[in-house]
Amino acid sequence: MKLKIAVTIVGFMAMLTAGAQQVISPNGNVQVNFMIDDGGRPTYEMLYKGKMVVNPSHLGLELARDKHASKGMNETDLLEGFAVTGSNVTSHDDTWTPVWGQYKTIRNNYNELAVDFYQQSANRKITIRFRVYDDGMGFRYEFPQQKDLNYFIIKEEKSEFAMTGNHMAWWQAGDYDTQEYPMQVTRLSDVRGRITACARWDDPKGVGIRRTDYTEDRQRDAVVWDNASQTVFSPTGVQTSIQLKTDDGLYINLHEAALVDYSCMHLNLDDKNMVFTSWLTPDATGYKGCMQTPCQSPWRTVLVSDDARQMLASSLILNLNEPCKIEDTSWIHPTKYCGVWWEMIVGHGSWHYTNEFPSVKLDQIDYSKAKPNGTHKANTQEVMRYIDFAASNGLDQVLVEGWNVGWEDWANMWKADVFDFVTPYPDFDIKFLNDYAHSKGVKLLMHHETSSSVTNYERHMEQAYQLMNDYGYDAVKSGYVGDIIPRGDHHYSQAMNNHYLYAVEEAAKHHIMVNAHEATRPTGLCRTWPNLVGNESARGTEYEAFYGSNPNHTVILPFTRFQGGPMDYTPGVLETDLSTWSDNQHKIHTTVVGQLALYVVMCSPLQMAADLPQNYEKYMDAFQFIRDVALDWDDSRYIDAEPGEYITVARKAKGTDNWFLGGKCNEKGHKVDVKLDFLDKGRKYEATIYADGKDASYETNRASYTITKKIVKQGDVLKLVEAPGGGVAITIKAI
Amino acid sequence: MKLKIAVTIVGFMAMLTAGAQQVISPNGNVQVNFMIDDGGRPTYEMLYKGKMVVNPSHLGLELARDKHASKGMNETDLLEGFAVTGSNVTSHDDTWTPVWGQYKTIRNNYNELAVDFYQQSANRKITIRFRVYDDGMGFRYEFPQQKDLNYFIIKEEKSEFAMTGNHMAWWQAGDYDTQEYPMQVTRLSDVRGRITACARWDDPKGVGIRRTDYTEDRQRDAVVWDNASQTVFSPTGVQTSIQLKTDDGLYINLHEAALVDYSCMHLNLDDKNMVFTSWLTPDATGYKGCMQTPCQSPWRTVLVSDDARQMLASSLILNLNEPCKIEDTSWIHPTKYCGVWWEMIVGHGSWHYTNEFPSVKLDQIDYSKAKPNGTHKANTQEVMRYIDFAASNGLDQVLVEGWNVGWEDWANMWKADVFDFVTPYPDFDIKFLNDYAHSKGVKLLMHHETSSSVTNYERHMEQAYQLMNDYGYDAVKSGYVGDIIPRGDHHYSQAMNNHYLYAVEEAAKHHIMVNAHEATRPTGLCRTWPNLVGNESARGTEYEAFYGSNPNHTVILPFTRFQGGPMDYTPGVLETDLSTWSDNQHKIHTTVVGQLALYVVMCSPLQMAADLPQNYEKYMDAFQFIRDVALDWDDSRYIDAEPGEYITVARKAKGTDNWFLGGKCNEKGHKVDVKLDFLDKGRKYEATIYADGKDASYETNRASYTITKKIVKQGDVLKLVEAPGGGVAITIKAI
Repeated sequence: MKLKIAVTIVGFMAMLTAGAQQVISPNGNVQVNFMIDDGGRPTYEMLYKGKMVVNPSHLGLELARDKHASKGMNETDLLEGFAVTGSNVTSHDDTWTPVWGQYKTIRNNYNELAVDFYQQSANRKITIRFRVYDDGMGFRYEFPQQKDLNYFIIKEEKSEFAMTGNHMAWWQAGDYDTQEYPMQVTRLSDVRGRITACARWDDPKGVGIRRTDYTEDRQRDAVVWDNASQTVFSPTGVQTSIQLKTDDGLYINLHEAALVDYSCMHLNLDDKNMVFTSWLTPDATGYKGCMQTPCQSPWRTVLVSDDARQMLASSLILNLNEPCKIEDTSWIHPTKYCGVWWEMIVGHGSWHYTNEFPSVKLDQIDYSKAKPNGTHKANTQEVMRYIDFAASNGLDQVLVEGWNVGWEDWANMWKADVFDFVTPYPDFDIKFLNDYAHSKGVKLLMHHETSSSVTNYERHMEQAYQLMNDYGYDAVKSGYVGDIIPRGDHHYSQAMNNHYLYAVEEAAKHHIMVNAHEATRPTGLCRTWPNLVGNESARGTEYEAFYGSNPNHTVILPFTRFQGGPMDYTPGVLETDLSTWSDNQHKIHTTVVGQLALYVVMCSPLQMAADLPQNYEKYMDAFQFIRDVALDWDDSRYIDAEPGEYITVARKAKGTDNWFLGGKCNEKGHKVDVKLDFLDKGRKYEATIYADGKDASYETNRASYTITKKIVKQGDVLKLVEAPGGGVAITIKAI
Repeated sequence: MKLKIAVTIVGFMAMLTAGAQQVISPNGNVQVNFMIDDGGRPTYEMLYKGKMVVNPSHLGLELARDKHASKGMNETDLLEGFAVTGSNVTSHDDTWTPVWGQYKTIRNNYNELAVDFYQQSANRKITIRFRVYDDGMGFRYEFPQQKDLNYFIIKEEKSEFAMTGNHMAWWQAGDYDTQEYPMQVTRLSDVRGRITACARWDDPKGVGIRRTDYTEDRQRDAVVWDNASQTVFSPTGVQTSIQLKTDDGLYINLHEAALVDYSCMHLNLDDKNMVFTSWLTPDATGYKGCMQTPCQSPWRTVLVSDDARQMLASSLILNLNEPCKIEDTSWIHPTKYCGVWWEMIVGHGSWHYTNEFPSVKLDQIDYSKAKPNGTHKANTQEVMRYIDFAASNGLDQVLVEGWNVGWEDWANMWKADVFDFVTPYPDFDIKFLNDYAHSKGVKLLMHHETSSSVTNYERHMEQAYQLMNDYGYDAVKSGYVGDIIPRGDHHYSQAMNNHYLYAVEEAAKHHIMVNAHEATRPTGLCRTWPNLVGNESARGTEYEAFYGSNPNHTVILPFTRFQGGPMDYTPGVLETDLSTWSDNQHKIHTTVVGQLALYVVMCSPLQMAADLPQNYEKYMDAFQFIRDVALDWDDSRYIDAEPGEYITVARKAKGTDNWFLGGKCNEKGHKVDVKLDFLDKGRKYEATIYADGKDASYETNRASYTITKKIVKQGDVLKLVEAPGGGVAITIKAI
């Protein structure tokens, strides 16, 4: 990694008023002004090209009065009574090389303002640090080690983000335990109405929000809905990343970066004044963080641009994370996989092996004597079929869910010892299958569903990873379905965030890549731990088999969920009518080409080809794109984009001269002329264009598509038409 | 182990009234009557020699309405509406051999009544099983696997123990997180007054009960008091084991046996009607247990006798536990140890190595560059001195507390990663010291203070045990000081009980003996896991260096705390005036001989000689008893006993013909004539009698003692006089 760091006192810093200071981004577009108000409250505002983005907003934290207060826990707030004791403005510019991602190299160029505060009443000092980029900014709280602030408990962080108006917002209801709600598109003023219409947000146990009388359409649209584990906390609480758009065309995104040893942030909206305030995830005691100095909060990020494409092109969140901590990253690689999964999601098979028992206890059951249910899909024959398919089609790995004992009653029963992560069902020959896969150049992809019994997972983790090493697995999909054990904790609490990172760090010791589902939404930690190759952390393809996802879903996620890191969305369901092969009557809410487009629109080094081999057999011409598409990139060029409407992007495959273009749109369809100015001058390329048919539509005619080839060169213009709920996918191969 | 089990339908079982049934102990002394009341509530009563012990009392459980109720959690109570569908009375008589304890073999002889119930409203069946012994009984709930009862959450167990009057009671205030309160001696009617005088029992965080204005005398007597972690829950809540005495001379003891995968039981007193009802320890959600059928509760035990000695001689609680699960127990052995501990408890040294930092983070500190504080006692020179002392005096092991990094800020700071359990301080040469000890026939005794950060301990446990194997440790003292992490949980919850047992089971795999401090009070699990050689679970000798313990404390504990298993009380402080060698002004509340007596009165295979080598040097004549005393026994004969007054016991050392006699009394002194009828006929013995001097007293003259030798034989009578707060200790060696 080439590193060039310039740290200088930047000349343009100036004292505005008493205590007020200003820092401007390298190109001058973004400006942050910082001041102390009359009450000694740290206050900032943010502008973009002279337009206000964030109105004056207070910063600070409420601390809890703990039973240990007399022993060093300081319970007075860090909100007011501060004086500025110093500040420092510096500049930074270097370029680093990610292990994978949408660019070959990433420039990290910002101006920084660090303001030191002293709170006389409690003899405490803190620092607030702003890093201002050309496409936004991040700030964080830093707590130096000091005599009167060694340990403290956070009751609430009170970071404000005062919006300048009733913006449009692409958002998801706040929840301590699920982030798989449908994405909402409303004005900020409509957040409250949408949440209260569906949720008993004042019911801490979440019992009130079961809606078994929901129609499927309502489930698909509902802002909150029936899920195993969910804890909605406020009628105006939303998750980050949230995408916003002002009436004068500014795009704003609020999220966080480098979420380590801290609770995950939500935002609570004061919908009279349009002010968001941070709202952290509590632990079982209701408090929101136990801190020991020296320490810091994650970065709170505000992306801003007048070009929606910059929301997608930004590397700000990655830049705010620490550099890679893994010395040898040679074992981390892009992974395209299929797997024994969609069959069960659709209801055509089971994870569990037997129906014989109303419940099982792992230490008391002899599966070898249990009666097989005949629906268990993770069996040797079926897995061999997938291995053969992967080997024939250039897929790297085969995920097998339901391979291990314990699935008979795994979810939502408060079972502590639900899985052991090492014992296969009798019909899954783990040694043979790994050997068979390896003989064909394929690996199996491990699955660790924890059932959110985290205590149990940690007790077995070392053995589970060791088993993977023993058999030659190098990637694991982990899952956290259901309520957290230790009971009372939440999926996004400080302790759980520490657990997810612990699992990633322990995996790294074993050279294992991690794809953690239901874990906290990512915040760019994959820069530091690039073996974190995927997360779910949003509503993935599986919901198409439950209630469906609206066509705009996949053109919102890149603006929101993908801000912090890649998603294992599991696209590629080419048999879009599930009833053709199962009892499931659902239809996918995209066209076939729309499915292909997702591989490019959703940047991820780990991508599933989610459909069944026998379904792909019916669409081998379209499947060719999935075979060909790269997962790691030297460059990415966003052609056009609008949240919830459309995204068109061209990406250059890592280490090649080939490009792949993906376009995805919502239910309204989309037309875009793509000028191929990113191709090398004077060079010829063969473009294979997978396009929706003229009559294609996600509702009525999903499987209508054309595949055409043409020779293209720099400057050529492709006139692309995407059907309602459709898309476009293009391979551009250098000749 | 020789096993003789007779299972027959016992003839004396009779139907009393409609649905009423009776079971009588083998010798007929104890009788339990069982019936269903008008509301279909299971009801029992208990008699001893025809006298009522427990008035009619209801049994049952309240279940919680869980958010998962619709998915298999059944929220209707198991309290009433039951019908008896069957019952079975059987008899059992066998004898088993404990790995260690107060007897060579133990007879397990009971009559059993198992009553099957059906609750029509919910289509559920349960069984209540009574085992009736000659000295008491135990009952438990059993929940068979069944369609309509697979998983359930316990809101509260409602087992009643209706006393027949306002008995005298030896008790300790109920608390979810500490059992180190002073023992109380009051009528049942005075429980409320004593607790409310000291505790804000209605304050769930326990903040209100800090009494920094307490005088030391008040701290010593106070029913509840200032402790790091405490959660008093009721003004009439008490812990078990509780010892009771009726006005007509019956001794009754309430406790539990085989506490596995269940929450620890307290008792809440209805002090109008003198009815105890079970009150379980909650987890962080407030609920008290997550159950999966088939399963059962622990046994609820009622010991009864008209002879106080039988309370101490009983093996009922051990008998109600499962047989030993460790196949090869050859590595489990009695252990007498000294250690680097009392110095720090008294305040004459520190566990921590440096005072340089206000707090430390293990991954950020370089101890090799830290400035030593000069008070760190676990240093190589000091430990060598203890090793030399142990080797010279026949002690088996040397405990070293403070050997490992992290003690600078270990307690009550909500630090998750407080210790790593494997890294020594720079001045503790772990390899050298173990080699040095082994060369002298001594082992080091490991110390794992967890700071109650259980998540952290479990992450390091395997490596920590492996380190012990690597260096040749075979016993660990573990500790759980402070509030539990995962936050919100309690020391005595179901999850924590599972953790303690997990630590013992994992230790057994490494052939490691466990002595767990601050863990849940024992319930006879040492029968099943005899590597659980000790627990603290009550106020030990350390409190003599804080506020003191009253002289009656050690003649209450054998009736209460020791019912479930041995205690690492750490006796043997022969320099009873701490100010002679430290700045601590406290004086031990026993005479020197009283300290010696504890080794016999308190039966334990693990005993510390707690004082410093240099202090023992001053009392080598008295210390001889500590050198000589056995820790494991072929037989135990209780000469006389009265709770809180006195205990005299003679024990025959395992595999020898030697006896040791211990007598301990409260502040009033005690006289006892001991007829040596337990000695072998025709054989001569040399008795060495360690007696209080005539003017001895725990208050004014603790170090007054005489040591006399005499030849004794069967039938001789020793006239023993114990001083106030004193005792007697006798070695009786076969010639």
